[in-house]
Amino acid sequence: MSANKAAGEKKLMLFSGRAYPELAEELAHNLEVEPTPTAAYDFANGETFVRFLESVRGSDAFVMQSHTAPINHWIMEQLIMVDALKRASAKTITVVAPFFGYARQDKKHRGREPISARLMADLFKTAGADRLITVDLHTAQIQGFFDGPVDHLFALDILATHVESKLDPAQVTVVAPDAGRVRVAERWTDRLGCPLAIIHKRRDPEVANEVRVFEVVGEVKGRTCVIVDDMIDTGGTIVKAADALFDQGAAKVVATATHGVLSGPAVDRLKNSRISEVVLTNTLPIPEEKQFDKLTVLSIAPLLARAINEVFSDGSVTSLFGGQS
Amino acid sequence: MSANKAAGEKKLMLFSGRAYPELAEELAHNLEVEPTPTAAYDFANGETFVRFLESVRGSDAFVMQSHTAPINHWIMEQLIMVDALKRASAKTITVVAPFFGYARQDKKHRGREPISARLMADLFKTAGADRLITVDLHTAQIQGFFDGPVDHLFALDILATHVESKLDPAQVTVVAPDAGRVRVAERWTDRLGCPLAIIHKRRDPEVANEVRVFEVVGEVKGRTCVIVDDMIDTGGTIVKAADALFDQGAAKVVATATHGVLSGPAVDRLKNSRISEVVLTNTLPIPEEKQFDKLTVLSIAPLLARAINEVFSDGSVTSLFGGQS
Amino acid sequence: MSANKAAGEKKLMLFSGRAYPELAEELAHNLEVEPTPTAAYDFANGETFVRFLESVRGSDAFVMQSHTAPINHWIMEQLIMVDALKRASAKTITVVAPFFGYARQDKKHRGREPISARLMADLFKTAGADRLITVDLHTAQIQGFFDGPVDHLFALDILATHVESKLDPAQVTVVAPDAGRVRVAERWTDRLGCPLAIIHKRRDPEVANEVRVFEVVGEVKGRTCVIVDDMIDTGGTIVKAADALFDQGAAKVVATATHGVLSGPAVDRLKNSRISEVVLTNTLPIPEEKQFDKLTVLSIAPLLARAINEVFSDGSVTSLFGGQS
Amino acid sequence: MSANKAAGEKKLMLFSGRAYPELAEELAHNLEVEPTPTAAYDFANGETFVRFLESVRGSDAFVMQSHTAPINHWIMEQLIMVDALKRASAKTITVVAPFFGYARQDKKHRGREPISARLMADLFKTAGADRLITVDLHTAQIQGFFDGPVDHLFALDILATHVESKLDPAQVTVVAPDAGRVRVAERWTDRLGCPLAIIHKRRDPEVANEVRVFEVVGEVKGRTCVIVDDMIDTGGTIVKAADALFDQGAAKVVATATHGVLSGPAVDRLKNSRISEVVLTNTLPIPEEKQFDKLTVLSIAPLLARAINEVFSDGSVTSLFGGQS
Amino acid sequence: MSANKAAGEKKLMLFSGRAYPELAEELAHNLEVEPTPTAAYDFANGETFVRFLESVRGSDAFVMQSHTAPINHWIMEQLIMVDALKRASAKTITVVAPFFGYARQDKKHRGREPISARLMADLFKTAGADRLITVDLHTAQIQGFFDGPVDHLFALDILATHVESKLDPAQVTVVAPDAGRVRVAERWTDRLGCPLAIIHKRRDPEVANEVRVFEVVGEVKGRTCVIVDDMIDTGGTIVKAADALFDQGAAKVVATATHGVLSGPAVDRLKNSRISEVVLTNTLPIPEEKQFDKLTVLSIAPLLARAINEVFSDGSVTSLFGGQS
Amino acid sequence: MSANKAAGEKKLMLFSGRAYPELAEELAHNLEVEPTPTAAYDFANGETFVRFLESVRGSDAFVMQSHTAPINHWIMEQLIMVDALKRASAKTITVVAPFFGYARQDKKHRGREPISARLMADLFKTAGADRLITVDLHTAQIQGFFDGPVDHLFALDILATHVESKLDPAQVTVVAPDAGRVRVAERWTDRLGCPLAIIHKRRDPEVANEVRVFEVVGEVKGRTCVIVDDMIDTGGTIVKAADALFDQGAAKVVATATHGVLSGPAVDRLKNSRISEVVLTNTLPIPEEKQFDKLTVLSIAPLLARAINEVFSDGSVTSLFGGQS
Repeated sequence: MSANKAAGEKKLMLFSGRAYPELAEELAHNLEVEPTPTAAYDFANGETFVRFLESVRGSDAFVMQSHTAPINHWIMEQLIMVDALKRASAKTITVVAPFFGYARQDKKHRGREPISARLMADLFKTAGADRLITVDLHTAQIQGFFDGPVDHLFALDILATHVESKLDPAQVTVVAPDAGRVRVAERWTDRLGCPLAIIHKRRDPEVANEVRVFEVVGEVKGRTCVIVDDMIDTGGTIVKAADALFDQGAAKVVATATHGVLSGPAVDRLKNSRISEVVLTNTLPIPEEKQFDKLTVLSIAPLLARAINEVFSDGSVTSLFGGQS
Repeated sequence: MSANKAAGEKKLMLFSGRAYPELAEELAHNLEVEPTPTAAYDFANGETFVRFLESVRGSDAFVMQSHTAPINHWIMEQLIMVDALKRASAKTITVVAPFFGYARQDKKHRGREPISARLMADLFKTAGADRLITVDLHTAQIQGFFDGPVDHLFALDILATHVESKLDPAQVTVVAPDAGRVRVAERWTDRLGCPLAIIHKRRDPEVANEVRVFEVVGEVKGRTCVIVDDMIDTGGTIVKAADALFDQGAAKVVATATHGVLSGPAVDRLKNSRISEVVLTNTLPIPEEKQFDKLTVLSIAPLLARAINEVFSDGSVTSLFGGQS
Repeated sequence: MSANKAAGEKKLMLFSGRAYPELAEELAHNLEVEPTPTAAYDFANGETFVRFLESVRGSDAFVMQSHTAPINHWIMEQLIMVDALKRASAKTITVVAPFFGYARQDKKHRGREPISARLMADLFKTAGADRLITVDLHTAQIQGFFDGPVDHLFALDILATHVESKLDPAQVTVVAPDAGRVRVAERWTDRLGCPLAIIHKRRDPEVANEVRVFEVVGEVKGRTCVIVDDMIDTGGTIVKAADALFDQGAAKVVATATHGVLSGPAVDRLKNSRISEVVLTNTLPIPEEKQFDKLTVLSIAPLLARAINEVFSDGSVTSLFGGQS
Repeated sequence: MSANKAAGEKKLMLFSGRAYPELAEELAHNLEVEPTPTAAYDFANGETFVRFLESVRGSDAFVMQSHTAPINHWIMEQLIMVDALKRASAKTITVVAPFFGYARQDKKHRGREPISARLMADLFKTAGADRLITVDLHTAQIQGFFDGPVDHLFALDILATHVESKLDPAQVTVVAPDAGRVRVAERWTDRLGCPLAIIHKRRDPEVANEVRVFEVVGEVKGRTCVIVDDMIDTGGTIVKAADALFDQGAAKVVATATHGVLSGPAVDRLKNSRISEVVLTNTLPIPEEKQFDKLTVLSIAPLLARAINEVFSDGSVTSLFGGQS
Repeated sequence: MSANKAAGEKKLMLFSGRAYPELAEELAHNLEVEPTPTAAYDFANGETFVRFLESVRGSDAFVMQSHTAPINHWIMEQLIMVDALKRASAKTITVVAPFFGYARQDKKHRGREPISARLMADLFKTAGADRLITVDLHTAQIQGFFDGPVDHLFALDILATHVESKLDPAQVTVVAPDAGRVRVAERWTDRLGCPLAIIHKRRDPEVANEVRVFEVVGEVKGRTCVIVDDMIDTGGTIVKAADALFDQGAAKVVATATHGVLSGPAVDRLKNSRISEVVLTNTLPIPEEKQFDKLTVLSIAPLLARAINEVFSDGSVTSLFGGQS
Repeated sequence: MSANKAAGEKKLMLFSGRAYPELAEELAHNLEVEPTPTAAYDFANGETFVRFLESVRGSDAFVMQSHTAPINHWIMEQLIMVDALKRASAKTITVVAPFFGYARQDKKHRGREPISARLMADLFKTAGADRLITVDLHTAQIQGFFDGPVDHLFALDILATHVESKLDPAQVTVVAPDAGRVRVAERWTDRLGCPLAIIHKRRDPEVANEVRVFEVVGEVKGRTCVIVDDMIDTGGTIVKAADALFDQGAAKVVATATHGVLSGPAVDRLKNSRISEVVLTNTLPIPEEKQFDKLTVLSIAPLLARAINEVFSDGSVTSLFGGQS
């Protein structure tokens, strides 16, 4: 007999970087699996070391990392984990990046700039990633930066369900805080059945170069404005947008975003703003010191878990989002 | 002596596919070079054959093709030209695609779709292209689909100079015909120093699924509206946008776009519309039978020629656009 | 538990481009499977769009397209289908091209020509194809152009069985219509146990440059000549070959080929020729208007189906052809 | 139904080059499988031909070759076997090279040298290898030369078990025969719990350029010295090392190495030396004419078989070596 | 100043493997350059070592090796040379292989065979080769196996000039010794203006399986037959072909081929045959003991030198062959 | 005229990351060039942005970054710089990493570990690097991890010249602080003409698992011991080595290393140790607070500058090191 035969089998294994272990735990709980025991630490000079404590050979590996600050550090750790999985004979390697770092550098805004989002996609490919799962990319085109399948999930349903439970859609105007968000805002208007406004950052013709005024395009007087963004970083844009809306007579402003980057002055700005509620998901860690009264954080773990299960069982991720993927 | 030495030299050669030889001629004229003599024809079963009639060895080759209908045919011809140049030892190969085909398929809108714009970028790379020169990509992110340098030119200056010569900026409102065009519209408002409006394609809450109404967001009453788009394909969107603008009291509507695809009913729609003037460039051929009184076509050849010259002489393409590239 | 386990499973899915849906239907029938429902259409400017209507995740996908005219269009559609399958997580992707387009451009005949057959193989690889199934390549070397497994099927058995049922092998001389077909002709002589002749396209020494005469090398007087070719394109060669055979005293001429390209004047030439019967397979569509009395078309679907089944079940394709593959 | 479903299955197949069929037989016996019947021969001009006589489609293929002299010939044969497996649709291809050829050329010792060990790793990858199994690489860094999983096995346990059965560890000093072997020697001292010495090849300050003296660093007087090396090639180094050890008062010298290259004068040198016993494994063939009284050859086949079984069944190769891999 | 500028310069360097240094010397003489001093030797176990003794940085490197027996050894040496050049920063690397080894394994003749000619092309690419120069490939399709420019030279002019000086074209019939050579034979008939015959290896219907008879197709009675082949390996085919020609009444037989492999019994067979003259080039070494009275060996060096010069100076190689390349 | 011709020219440009601008300045000074003006900063969430302020098209770009802590951050910045250069059409891109990060993770020490040094090499290649310049790699094999030319410089001459000026070679014993450093120590003994000792980290047979004692192998009584290492990280090893040397009667201990990582407790340990002098180069920044009396820091800039100049002018880097590279 020149061949030994055996039945095929597949096994799902979950791996977590150190950036945000709580989300990995929550995800693992949803998947009814334990994160694979892993030794990970940094050497004194900052080099990262990772070793998996169980055999991963032949597994369908899902490697979760939250691209939070210090982001270069955590991306490098995830790359190193992928390399270790490749060299340890994992069968497939799926990078799970709920927030995909560097997504804003998705084009050259001016000459001699990098396209770092493409670079990151290529780095993951080089390290050995076969597939990518992520949520609400800054621009959907980033899917095309990765040479392989990308499961692009939407938090819209999670966020909108919450908003609907709190606000009367008949009062709501959805507001895109800048030009790049109009498409997403349109999805919200379709979901809520309500009108749209946008914030136009216009160069101030009265003042010197590069100063910009926030001009409201659309009708917001007396409306409950829901500003929808993919991420809140320093909070500057969203707070100025809220001010502009109030200036135009808005009755109330709520802000939602998938990714709570909340860097630098963000928390103070939001706390001190006239925004009534800020709704985020936990694609990025929001530690206690960044939480505040009017902040609501919704969990992204159930969505990620359903996607991973569909990927593992060769089901349809598209079906999770009513045909969107 | 174990090495023969010689002075280095470089030579620019221009190659043209058969899609739009007039633009290649114009470009050649601007570059003060002849298009390289080329034998190109289709076999009876539609297979394309190309042969260059002069040595191309060691050249910096620029291969122009206009991605006009039948677009798959012309893209394939350009791929075959690139392959022939690679095998004939051209030193560098730059694909010049004034309109980059399939740019609208730049993401998966729903599950199980291709990302054809990335595919095209990869096909050119596989055939042997080193660099890409193109004008006004549907989304700037497509730059990141090509694994190499992309010189992304803007027709804004050409179009805006014309518009400025015809209209009083104080009367103008720039209009984005849909969510995806708002960013470009903002560049126009910066250039002209005028306000913005956008057309919001809203799902009609009164009517059954998927019917959409064109809602004007922003103030257009009594204004001269300049709709700015990257391309005019069937003309449906732009004509409906114009109607919506007139419904909201616009005084006048002018439409501009870089790429005049003008397929199917486009010409009739535009001719019969209330739009006063349509301004395009000739990145795509606009044959006589598609021309009409209120259409103005501006030449893209000088811009392409300057970019090619900068590339060849290692100058700065960025400098052509005030820092944008 | 750090791993979820599940039994492995595999599923065969068949996809068909729009070039020749009848063959796909016939193939599906032989495979006892339905072609996967697919939305495919061209935009007004000729860009092709494809979307699969069922989940393809984890499938062994077989993507059939007939490379018929307009061939660049259909090849591009197949590339786009492969891209969509890759991005939708098909496990393996096999391109089924019964006739492999551009196979005649398999070398540089002169300088500065493309090798388009290699280019096509590379384009399919780049799009995401893992394997290729094809029938009677113009030259067998094209197998080596694809970086992966190629299952190269032979229609010889189908064609020869038909010929044997109609003719007395003792009367037959197999004729190679040009230098490139002699190898295939030798397979026929082995199968039928009969002698060989070839048509030598000789430069006419009496006349000016490049005029060629069809010279019969070998004995054909009183014989039933079976001209064997891989394809009949414009029919020019095969009809001139038949004339040359009759000039040398052939009693009867039958022509067979795997691929019925039948472009331009082919049908008229064949109808009006002294050839008694033309035998083809349906690797390419032969629409009603191209059919004529003395034409016999044999189905290639059963052979393709057996090969696909062997590939899917990890059986031996080689075994289908008596050791040839 | 648009998909045919079937249960997944996997099959292990073993392939052997012609360099050392006896080891393949032994390995097959351990794996309870037959080596796949293979036709392999050289054409008169030295070109190698290989053909497998059974279907390999869908198999997990393990391709064994011993990199013995003429080493270029056997490596090329193994590359050709891998190519044939790739083109015949093997599912995975694992190169089994018990001794990895060119491992000593693992860096540029001086300018304008190749790094042949990396080249070999790349050649195997190009041919189609997915994974590599090897024993005691010259330097462990060579694992990193292959872009994929490498299962790096250690013969230490096999060799040390034998040594322990013959010698009293309390009498033993482990000796590294040169600077590059000190790490391996340290593993031996850990295993045997005994002291270390090293041979320092020092440039002789008394004599002209490049002559080197073998200086013993460490205490060896009255000790049983076990010289541990990865390979014995011409035997020159090890015999000079033994002489130096005896000069410093060593009581007895035993030499062990994983790989018995034994080229040129090696056998005579070892036979005529004062070394008591030479212990090798059979990663390379040691034909009868190279065997001599004080030589012991231990079989590597059980170790290879256990590794292959773990790889095939997705078990842990690491577990074979107490955490080392 | 942020950039240091310098004039570009290029330098041609010639490198020779050890297979056939005489041809390299002859080539160097034609190029008026010295072969770069190189240290090359084999270690005792057969591993090959190469080091260049002069800086090669920035050079256009041409690496000559004759693929003669032991062919695997010499190909591996050439690969190692290419690797060393790549790592030493040569600017471009051109592999010069006057006879391209493994060219006969250019397709799968049966299932589960390698396509070794493609493999060799890929190995050279992997090692770092940018371009390939070779003479009279077994099939022209092999050009397409290399992913880059191939300069495919023809020895036809060299051989035919010699034949014309010795024979009266009016008496000559060109003979293709098997089906694969008919295309080349047709080039000869065009050059000499004479008729064609071919040798058909027909399965003997009278005898058991696989025995083949050499049947002459075409008229050779009283003619001077010039058998044209790409290579003479063991001489078996060509001598049997000559016998068959004499059996059919040929007056005289001359044999020509580009590549004199002359392995095993070739020399004796040719010497003892009724062939009047054998004409070869020196793409492969023909040592004194293989030379015999009726053998003529013509030098290929001038042709190679002209091609290398054209490549280096960005001239047209095509122009050397009247448009063929 | 179908080609425009121009003389070739080349220009060297130097780029510096933000990790250690002082070394870049020093390097620039040695090269007589300014570092290219660059805008580089981190966004609030840690993402790195880089833009070059001058055209880099056609340049030979040298991109310097010191891989100091936070090392992942600085490596990522360098990758992003390389990407930006690639997309801005630099002709060649050379990564200058005086200390190559992750060099210690050059193999799998145990199962399921990454080989991060290979990963880093691949990441640089993916980003677009053509060549690598580095100093004293942890193991020379890392050269082979990069698929392209590596110019591997040695600081030995700089360090040894200093040591020679301070110590009497006749008194010196060179000490390798662990098994991996013996090769480098041998280069020192050759240079200084003095004996060798090594520190053997032996598992303590008296004590529980994994505790190791530092055993001196070789004679050090009364000697001036020069410990030579590639880097000093936490200083633990080198201080324990010094203690062991004094325990064995060493008269004096000097420590030298190329790379002063000096992380965590290193400075305190060294200051408080009995080591007389510590000699380092500035491949990594050694800020004032890490400097101490007995520390000498030698500049690596002149060596890097000479190498860059040789690379740019196609000279021999090897010649800088007496044949080593």
